Formats: sequence, structure tokens, C-alpha cells
Amino acid sequence: MEIVRPTLLLDKETCLRNIARMAEKAKAKNLDFCPHFKTHQSAIIGEWFREFGISAITVSSVQMAQYFARNGWTDITIALPVNILEIDQINQLASGINLNLLVENKESLVFLDKFIKFQAGIYIEIDTGYNRTGVAAHKTNLVDGLLEIVKNNKLLDFKGFLSHTGHTYQASSRHDIFNHHFDALLKMRSLKNRYKKDWPNLKLSLGDTPSASICDNFDGIDELRPGNFIFYDLMQYKLGTCKFEDIALRLVCPVIARHASRNEVIIYGGAIHTSKDSIINIDGKELYGQVIINQNGQKILLDERNYLHKLSQEHGIIKVTYKDFNSFKVGDLVEIVPVHSCLTANLMGSYLTSDGEYIPTIRQA
Amino acid sequence: MEIVRPTLLLDKETCLRNIARMAEKAKAKNLDFCPHFKTHQSAIIGEWFREFGISAITVSSVQMAQYFARNGWTDITIALPVNILEIDQINQLASGINLNLLVENKESLVFLDKFIKFQAGIYIEIDTGYNRTGVAAHKTNLVDGLLEIVKNNKLLDFKGFLSHTGHTYQASSRHDIFNHHFDALLKMRSLKNRYKKDWPNLKLSLGDTPSASICDNFDGIDELRPGNFIFYDLMQYKLGTCKFEDIALRLVCPVIARHASRNEVIIYGGAIHTSKDSIINIDGKELYGQVIINQNGQKILLDERNYLHKLSQEHGIIKVTYKDFNSFKVGDLVEIVPVHSCLTANLMGSYLTSDGEYIPTIRQA
Repeated sequence: MEIVRPTLLLDKETCLRNIARMAEKAKAKNLDFCPHFKTHQSAIIGEWFREFGISAITVSSVQMAQYFARNGWTDITIALPVNILEIDQINQLASGINLNLLVENKESLVFLDKFIKFQAGIYIEIDTGYNRTGVAAHKTNLVDGLLEIVKNNKLLDFKGFLSHTGHTYQASSRHDIFNHHFDALLKMRSLKNRYKKDWPNLKLSLGDTPSASICDNFDGIDELRPGNFIFYDLMQYKLGTCKFEDIALRLVCPVIARHASRNEVIIYGGAIHTSKDSIINIDGKELYGQVIINQNGQKILLDERNYLHKLSQEHGIIKVTYKDFNSFKVGDLVEIVPVHSCLTANLMGSYLTSDGEYIPTIRQA
Repeated sequence: MEIVRPTLLLDKETCLRNIARMAEKAKAKNLDFCPHFKTHQSAIIGEWFREFGISAITVSSVQMAQYFARNGWTDITIALPVNILEIDQINQLASGINLNLLVENKESLVFLDKFIKFQAGIYIEIDTGYNRTGVAAHKTNLVDGLLEIVKNNKLLDFKGFLSHTGHTYQASSRHDIFNHHFDALLKMRSLKNRYKKDWPNLKLSLGDTPSASICDNFDGIDELRPGNFIFYDLMQYKLGTCKFEDIALRLVCPVIARHASRNEVIIYGGAIHTSKDSIINIDGKELYGQVIINQNGQKILLDERNYLHKLSQEHGIIKVTYKDFNSFKVGDLVEIVPVHSCLTANLMGSYLTSDGEYIPTIRQA
């Protein structure tokens, strides 16, 4: 298949290696592996996980749960605080599959208590420091209140405590990631200790890619649900949570202009193709992607003085060094290593694998 | 139609008013109006322009040109420097409609000269100061070189000079916008004067929404091709190029959590729903949207101390004042006024009008 416009290349071998590594780690640590499918959002890629014995998955919306349920998944956790407005869709899902919902406030649970019509698992979301959603780990009075409601409703099954240690993505070092993870571990374990008498089967679920990738201590944790690890990206590489060769995505873009006076190369590939998430480059400026060129059939990763530094809707501007400027010709294809795989995959809506296979996501389904 | 998840509401009346205003302005100034359809990307919305006598449109990619050609548009300018890798698709388009291409470098034009098979219009892109793409206005030797090629190819029709004064979007005042526009005007006119002897029919085309909205002097300009003006957004409002009531889009999102300790309200609605483009709020922090709530059936725009201030993939965090915190309940729908309409529309892929009509974009087609 000839590439003539911005195309998201996916290296299937790298993906499979990333999945295998995480699946083996989960197994070695005696953790259930419940991967987050919000990263790839694709039924075909979902199938790749089955070879590794995966049967339970995580998603981030009811729509995504519906999509994967249609594609044969029967054990799905929606890891976003329950949106009570979607109660009809939730009931429909719960009537057909094992559905787990996330709850972090009384209002939602009171609503579910009243309107749920089929058996559904309930995770209580715990905030272990990310400060986005979840009950703060020390607020056991709130947890008690939630469990009181769950206990008295036969359709609601308390599954355990779930947390997303998302502040590891903003860590300034691997050490920071270990710290955040260990802190989350202690908080989650103390909840387990407190509630295990009444709820002997309660599970603890953790899920951020940084700690899932590099931390080794998961004592007391029962389930791991990272998502980004299947593709990784520059953000993860800079955090030190993956090797460069673990990054499975490349946004391939045609060169459409060159401006020697500014040492800039312009590609067809902009903010509707790759995300506006950036990392700070060595020159203190925003970097939206690193650049790989093809030279005499060889792929060469250029150093960070050559980088995607501006995006408009369809244009991307690559800042290049004087030395490398002439490596770019109008009509060349260059590869952009994305900063944030999840958002780039969402924008592109499909992948092209190294074998030439076209893989749609939920957006093209 | 009941809204239960993030939904992009479009006020059709406001859109029609915005189109009418721009169409009338173009008419009054004796300008051809060739609106940019990259903002709405929708065949149905495209039809709304026909009532105003529009028959020629601008798009930003070959794919978008194919989509609108399939939907009955026969005069299309692709306002992105030509991507020579799409020559087959370009030839196919040129065989069926009046297609205008944008050229800003010799390599592309040499390629077109060799491989174009059907009549195509050629605009030379002029850089009037935005420094993205285009021949710098003073480099007439480059323009001469390009015109030499066009002149000798019967399939290539020189249409004129096209510029996008995109630096008006970064202006710090209306005065700045007037300055940039006037500077562009002088540069474009001097090109017209220089080349009109040899090319008496050459046109000058300008297109940014800020100057199209507030500037009055278009002497010598022949064509206006703004896009964003159909929806406008907070960025335009802050620039002073539209009134608040001209903003036609609202991202409606369910409230899923509230955190009084942080004065934060969490909505289902994140970076896959609205763009990561931000403006700087009064507190010096990034603002991703302003917030409208529904109180006793009345819509109330909250001031900028209540604003969308963080986005993850599906979560949005609204910072609220202590006073307004209790105006939000779990299960409420709030309206987010987007910072950058074009990117939000691209992410959402469809609209719901005030009349309950579902309008898909190219992404859902």
C-alpha cells in the first residue's frame, strides 16, 4: 500500500512484544491483567491480546464498552466515574456482559441503587494523589457510606478499590515514579486491610503505564490495567519507562515545503493528525514529535535539534539544523515519533501495520 | 434528542447570521467569497452557503476536496501547498471539477508541469509575514521562476496570489490585526501591480478570519476565504474579532464528579472531545473553555473564575469558585464554549443542531 498522505504506521511486532512483556510481568507478580483499550480503541488490536490469555478489559467510556462488547468482549470495566445520564446504555450492557462500573461519589451510587436493573460490579475509585477523581484514600467515612449502599443492593457487587496513579506521567524522574507508586501501594493496601474482613474477595486495581512498566513491588495488588504501554511514545521514553525501540507508532507525513532562510521543513501533518500534547525540548521549546528520515533506504532518527515544533490544522513545521536541511526534499515521506500515542491514535482513527494491514478504530467502525 | 454524553451543539441561526454577515461584507467590498470549509468539514453545512450564492470553496486537503466534490461542489481551491504524492487523486479531481492548487516552491511546480493531465488553476502562495509557507512577498525572482513554468504549460492556469495572514491569530490587540492586514494588503497589491501587465486577470486572495471580520480596507483584493467565522470561538472573542453571541458551538458535557476540597467539578469531556488549544486566563493559567450552566431553565455564562482548566483523554476539570460550586450537580449537563472551534469540530466529527438535526462531518461520512 502506497502512502501518499498522513498515515499512522503501527509496528505489530513491537506491539506484540510490549503486550507479551506486560502480560508476563503481571503473571510473574500474580496480577490479573486487565489492559486499558482506550489507547488503541480497535477491535482488531484487541484480538491480539487474546493470545496472551486476556479476557477482561478496561475502557474509558460507555460507547467504548458497547463497541468492544459488540466485538466479543464479555468482561469490561469502565474506568471513568459513572455517567448516570447513560443509565439506559449501562443497563443494556449489564444485561449481556460482566460490567464493572466506577463510583466515587454518593450521588451516582444512590442513582445506580435506584435504577440499575442487572447485576453490575462496582469499583470504588480511590485518589492516591493524582487529584483528578476518586475518594481520597484517607476518607474511609465516605467509603463506608458507599459500601453501605452497595451492601444493601443485590444487583451491585462490590469488586474492590481502583486507582489511577496518573501523577506518574508528570514525574521528573524514575525515582519520582517509584515514590508515587509506593505511596499508592501503601494507601491501597491499608484500604484492603481495613475492609477485607467484611469483603474478603475485594480486589485492588492499579493501572498507570509508568509504574506498570518500571516498578517491581505490587504486593497486595490484584489487578493491573495499563493502556499506553502497547504503543508507548516519546513522553514515556523521556520518563524512562520504555526504550526507544518499544515505541510502536509513527505518523508518516509528506514533505510539502522547505524554507532554508528559517531552517524549516513543512509537512502535510498537523493538529488534526497528531496531538497538541508536547514535551519540552533541549532548547526549552515545545516539541510535538521527533523525526525519522529515510536515507538511501536506511531509516535515520535525527537528534532533537531536528523536531516537530509547530502545528496548525494540517501543516506541521519541523525545525532542522543547517547540516540536515538538505536531507529533506519536497515529496519525501518523513516519520514523526508521536509525543502522546493515545491522542494521536484517536485523531487518526486507523492504523496501517508493517504487514500492510489496514486497522480501523472505533472512530471508523 | 436526549443528550447523555459529550455532544457538539451547533446554533444554526448563529451560523447563518455569521455567513450572511461575511457574505454581505464580501459583496459590499466587491470581493469573491470563497469560504474555507476546513472549519466545519460537513456537506450539510456546506449546503447552507448556497443560499448566499456561494459556488466556489476552499479546503485544506485533497481528501476534503474529494469529499466536497462528491457532494456537488465543482469549484474548489486546496489551500495547502500541493502534496505531489497525491498526484493521482489531484488528476482525478481536476478531470471533473474546477480545481485550484497552491504552489510555493519550484520542485512541486516542476512535478506538476510533468504529471498534471487535466486543466488546473494555480495560485502562488505568498508569505505576508506568518512565516509558515509561501514565497516571501519580496522574492519576485522566485515568483518569476514559477510563472515561467506555468506560462509554458497549457494545462496550468495562473489564477493569482494567495496568502494566509495567520499571524493575526496571535495578535495582542485589534490594532495589531489592522497592522498585519494592512501590511499584507500592501505586499499583495505590489505583486499585482508588478504582474498585471502579463497576467491581467490575476486575482489576490486573502483569508484569515480576524482580518476578514474586523478590517474594512480590501482595496485591490479580489477574493476572501475565511473559515473559522462560521462558528467563531473563545480565541476569536478574546481577539475582539467577534461578539460572544456570534460563537455558534457548545460542547455539552455531563458532570460526573465534584471535589469541594479543590473547588473542582469533573465532566465527561476531555482531550478527545475538545482541543488542547488554550488561551491564558485572568489567573495566568491555561483555559480550555468557558462554562455555561442551566439554572432553573435559564442558561448562565459563568465568569472566567469558573473555567475548564485541565483535560485528560475523557475527563475535563472545571475550576470553580466557592460561590458557584453548588450550582453543579452530578448528572447535570454543562456547556463548554470552545477555545478553537475548528479542532473541536474535527475531534467530535458531528454536530447536533438547535433543531435536533444530526449533522455528520467528513469523519463520519
